[in-house]
Amino acid sequence: MLEDSVGLAAVTVLGVLEQAYFCLQVIYARRKFKVSPPSTAGPPQFERIFRAQANCSEYFPIFIIVLWISGVFFSEALSCLCGLLYLYARLRYFQGYSESAEGRLDPLYSSARVLWLLIWFCGLGVLLSFCRIYLKLDLIKGFYAA
Amino acid sequence: MLEDSVGLAAVTVLGVLEQAYFCLQVIYARRKFKVSPPSTAGPPQFERIFRAQANCSEYFPIFIIVLWISGVFFSEALSCLCGLLYLYARLRYFQGYSESAEGRLDPLYSSARVLWLLIWFCGLGVLLSFCRIYLKLDLIKGFYAA
Amino acid sequence: MLEDSVGLAAVTVLGVLEQAYFCLQVIYARRKFKVSPPSTAGPPQFERIFRAQANCSEYFPIFIIVLWISGVFFSEALSCLCGLLYLYARLRYFQGYSESAEGRLDPLYSSARVLWLLIWFCGLGVLLSFCRIYLKLDLIKGFYAA
Ligand SMILES: N[C@@H](CCC(=O)N[C@@H](CS)C(=O)NCC(=O)O)C(=O)O
Ligand SMILES: N[C@@H](CCC(=O)N[C@@H](CS)C(=O)NCC(=O)O)C(=O)O
Ligand SMILES: N[C@@H](CCC(=O)N[C@@H](CS)C(=O)NCC(=O)O)C(=O)O
Repeated sequence: MLEDSVGLAAVTVLGVLEQAYFCLQVIYARRKFKVSPPSTAGPPQFERIFRAQANCSEYFPIFIIVLWISGVFFSEALSCLCGLLYLYARLRYFQGYSESAEGRLDPLYSSARVLWLLIWFCGLGVLLSFCRIYLKLDLIKGFYAA
Repeated sequence: MLEDSVGLAAVTVLGVLEQAYFCLQVIYARRKFKVSPPSTAGPPQFERIFRAQANCSEYFPIFIIVLWISGVFFSEALSCLCGLLYLYARLRYFQGYSESAEGRLDPLYSSARVLWLLIWFCGLGVLLSFCRIYLKLDLIKGFYAA
Repeated sequence: MLEDSVGLAAVTVLGVLEQAYFCLQVIYARRKFKVSPPSTAGPPQFERIFRAQANCSEYFPIFIIVLWISGVFFSEALSCLCGLLYLYARLRYFQGYSESAEGRLDPLYSSARVLWLLIWFCGLGVLLSFCRIYLKLDLIKGFYAA
């Protein structure tokens, strides 16, 4: 049941707090560099902070979706671990991108690697559940029995 | 079970309808102000409508996530109530921002307050579930027994 | 239980892969047209690819939300079918928009039609569950009995 996925929920809430932190940074940058909405154009440093938050926001739903599917269908512990790594990589992405465009690359690659791992977990988990439910085939049990 | 969270689902569907309404307003504004895609630059009123929808879209996944976690782990009734308040604040945000940049501020603060409340509920709910599941400690029951 | 919604999960993972594909296309277009972040302005073809991915990302959370609510509260099979149609329409949207602004319109209308259908399913599913849980009224059974 959903209530038992307390680890996934904890990582999710942490992710929401990170997104809130990024939003606040854009609001401070808007004040500091005097870029009043609806404008989104300003000095390069403002634009980097603005785009860093936009990019993280774009990937956030994807991250939450794969976190939960991988956690429910594959392994909650592994998903939570990957989730924490992803959130840490995104924090470094935001900080790196705020400083320079090149600074975003290393943490971006880390975050992408973790995301692909979670997507693999999702695929595997969905496949195993599919075999178990529709083909009455428990691959994991069969694996241990072999 | 998920099917029992019918209140959360109803608020979610209402939220989706609100987002659809915002998208339609951007489409009408594109026609009215003759701003053909892929361009997103135009007269200030267009840019305000465009940014209002973009901003609401950015926060929408965050809102849905905290709505559900708070509803499942803390209280469905309180979450639904906050959800309705949030959606109303976002409607006023969109309308206020369409008229002037200052018009967005009051409803933005309201929506942020409700979002923080939901985040608190999430944190509390996750903590209580954590204590109940992993520490076998029912804080709520202990609270009533004390 | 969530684990039983393996069809919805499979469509969701497919959707995530599609979003990853769109992101990669933007990264390739940034290299090809030499548009370095944080800039988002460039030749029209780049801007169309950039906006196509941005638009799909904006709708992605909405799609996933209605897919699951419709699948859990109404019908998993119908939701999965609509989900596949939506993802196919979005692929054609991305390809059409990359080629010309008009090219995005037909697939956009298809995707919008499927989305509205899913929203109707959600509304119906939530209504039926509401009647069943709060009014102890099983409309579907009543329908067959009548
Ligand atoms: N993407 C937002 C992130 C921060 C935010 O939510 N800002 C509030 C207060 S300045 C807002 O109303 N932004 C207007 C906008 O996004 O156009 C931004 O660019 O400002
Ligand atoms: N919206 C993104 C989609 C692709 C993406 O995630 N790109 C990476 C590598 S180029 C990035 O860091 N983009 C910077 C940005 O979004 O401002 C973009 O415009 O680039
Ligand atoms: N963010 C969208 C919201 C509305 C929408 O989905 N518009 C459709 C029909 S005009 C579209 O294809 N927009 C192109 C785009 O987002 O670049 C926009 O700016 O237009």
